Amino acid sequence: MTYEGFLSRAASHMQESGIRKISAVGQKIPDLVPLAAGFPSPDTFAWDEFRAIANDLLSGKDASALQYGPTRGYAPLISALIEVMAGRGVKAQESELLVTTGSQQGLDLVARVLLDPGDVALVELPSYAGAISAFRNTGAAIVGVRQDADGVDLDDLARVTREQRAAGHRVRFLYVVPNFQNPTGLLIGLDKRRRLLEWATREDVLIVEDDPYGALFFTDVAQESDTRPIKADDPEGRVIYLSSFSKTLAPGFRVAWMVAPAPLTSHFEVAKQAIDISAGVLDQRVVFRAYEQGLLMSRLPMLRAHYQAKRAAMEQSLRAELGDTLSWVQPRGGFFIWARFPEGIDTDALIMRAVQRGVAYVTGSAFYVDEGASRRWARLSFSFPPIDRMREGVKRLAVAVREELAETSVPSASFPAAR
Amino acid sequence: MTYEGFLSRAASHMQESGIRKISAVGQKIPDLVPLAAGFPSPDTFAWDEFRAIANDLLSGKDASALQYGPTRGYAPLISALIEVMAGRGVKAQESELLVTTGSQQGLDLVARVLLDPGDVALVELPSYAGAISAFRNTGAAIVGVRQDADGVDLDDLARVTREQRAAGHRVRFLYVVPNFQNPTGLLIGLDKRRRLLEWATREDVLIVEDDPYGALFFTDVAQESDTRPIKADDPEGRVIYLSSFSKTLAPGFRVAWMVAPAPLTSHFEVAKQAIDISAGVLDQRVVFRAYEQGLLMSRLPMLRAHYQAKRAAMEQSLRAELGDTLSWVQPRGGFFIWARFPEGIDTDALIMRAVQRGVAYVTGSAFYVDEGASRRWARLSFSFPPIDRMREGVKRLAVAVREELAETSVPSASFPAAR
Repeated sequence: MTYEGFLSRAASHMQESGIRKISAVGQKIPDLVPLAAGFPSPDTFAWDEFRAIANDLLSGKDASALQYGPTRGYAPLISALIEVMAGRGVKAQESELLVTTGSQQGLDLVARVLLDPGDVALVELPSYAGAISAFRNTGAAIVGVRQDADGVDLDDLARVTREQRAAGHRVRFLYVVPNFQNPTGLLIGLDKRRRLLEWATREDVLIVEDDPYGALFFTDVAQESDTRPIKADDPEGRVIYLSSFSKTLAPGFRVAWMVAPAPLTSHFEVAKQAIDISAGVLDQRVVFRAYEQGLLMSRLPMLRAHYQAKRAAMEQSLRAELGDTLSWVQPRGGFFIWARFPEGIDTDALIMRAVQRGVAYVTGSAFYVDEGASRRWARLSFSFPPIDRMREGVKRLAVAVREELAETSVPSASFPAAR
Repeated sequence: MTYEGFLSRAASHMQESGIRKISAVGQKIPDLVPLAAGFPSPDTFAWDEFRAIANDLLSGKDASALQYGPTRGYAPLISALIEVMAGRGVKAQESELLVTTGSQQGLDLVARVLLDPGDVALVELPSYAGAISAFRNTGAAIVGVRQDADGVDLDDLARVTREQRAAGHRVRFLYVVPNFQNPTGLLIGLDKRRRLLEWATREDVLIVEDDPYGALFFTDVAQESDTRPIKADDPEGRVIYLSSFSKTLAPGFRVAWMVAPAPLTSHFEVAKQAIDISAGVLDQRVVFRAYEQGLLMSRLPMLRAHYQAKRAAMEQSLRAELGDTLSWVQPRGGFFIWARFPEGIDTDALIMRAVQRGVAYVTGSAFYVDEGASRRWARLSFSFPPIDRMREGVKRLAVAVREELAETSVPSASFPAAR
């Protein structure tokens, strides 16, 4: 029997994640160097401490550690998150906090509670593919706003907003990743953050601020004050803030959180009741204990140094192997280098050759939503592989690029620069 | 600022879970006996074994234990689930399996992939409140079908289907809990299961079969063969089957699964990518190891005996304390007694007095979707409290009922029997 006739409209339009598709292909190739998925480095996980914590939690002393838990989240973890947010300059109340099953769930909750089919969500061009999918799955239209070296281009933001409204569409929010954006690695300046909030107030829209990487700035070129959330200067309640333990503790726990105005948080909670009841109950306790023991805070300098060293290694390799052809803006934190390939390279076409040569990346087109999709770009993650493997991966990428350039004698006019 | 104007249509109609609301009230009352939430008994959790498993998994030997994992689920767990399903008479393929973040997520995936606003999902009257919420949150209409002592009434099913189609609505699926239904505890007979599948084929609709309790039959009045899933006799692929480790291992892991025709499973997977990426990665491994060690299967006889003893104790208490006023069908498995209260009792009104007297239950109306909502019913869970506490709870319930009956001199004609 066939099932097309049974699918909802939403389901018929859902698209497989480009990142996960490439990751899945990659897992079948032995010896592949994964520069695709933005996995944190497992060398940074606090195995010994987690083991001791789990050992204690599973003693059976507190039976609720494996029971159903409250949808809002484990109460002591919520108190801890209030402290975490205070450390980031955000005064959050208990009524504004919700623990989510990874930040991906926060994005899905935002989509379901705020977007109707036909509504418009604005995203940076390019933007995190998982957010685009979550928003698009509601039937909303996702419209891109160009970025300059300092993130969102305010003129383009004004133009896009005006155009969408003129076309009769409701613009609901701007989704933005101000700290070391996925995929570009860009850091939005503090002045622009202020102006984004002014724009939101003036236009009466919300800002969805996604901040998985903020704690992972690189001390050679950035400092903590550069990462101050937009939410920290939001007394009015225009900003929905998301963050996660996936990059600082471990993604396998699937524990993240959101801070939003209390009335919206109530709606997110009610939606979550029918979505998965609660985040992992044991997972939340492990994360809470790790925080309580000071593990999260004490390890941040090590994490920053670890990823900074990997960024340096990747930049060095790229300069050595592809310095004459690739260009990028040095990331000041996070996991990614957003590389521009030379004319004649279509990263959607290159990927098959790259995988054959033993290296994977994420094609730039995975992060675009519309006519802006340039196929000259790729996201290279430096977070996961050990440095020697990463160097090997860049070498393989260079081989693939050289082969591709040698074979493509197509004149540049016929190159499809956008789709 | 106010947020009503920012809410999606779906969000404006979402309702708080009645079960979770009562549970939340209950948690604030010291000494309350919780007969409301259907929590498994923590005495049955394999603390020592889980501790040993977690200890090993967190050694750091296998770094992927805390990394992002595949959306489909941990591959060895999927193989284990194929065996579990074979034990239940279902030949499942890898391509038909998806690990979900609790069965609640399976219900949400069903809703999002199969229901458009205005579509009809059929449910038993009464039915599991969490399923009703998940389906309703898509904007679909949830329509109830009456049950007799053997579950779904086939005549009413035919009538409702006919009526909904005559009104121009698309009937997408029937949601059914054949084994020890939540809330009624009813077990659907094998013959009726066969006829439900014939009905689905004839009418070209799907069946969503939710089976959290099937392994927990009571050997004094039932046997394993009574619980054979509808999915076991579904060569055509009409049935989407959901089950969970929440009642047999522990709910805190949030690990469950679904078995559906491969083309639908692909859609569920793509939807899940944008919902939470994957179920808890460490959790899935703990559950897999527990299965691998034979823990799941070897403990089932103990679990059956445990809950059977609690059912017996609750029935005995109810007969002793309220035998003259309450009636119920003896459950042959599962967690619940569905009790009919005497004329003059409105369980929605009684709940406040019951909580004051120190006992909570779930009001019958939480499980109804439409005009069938009778306020003469309540769900009493015998699964969670120790037997002496449960007995105390029933005593308190009896006090509340007697007080309520003494105070309500309202003639029965003015009693709102339905809403």
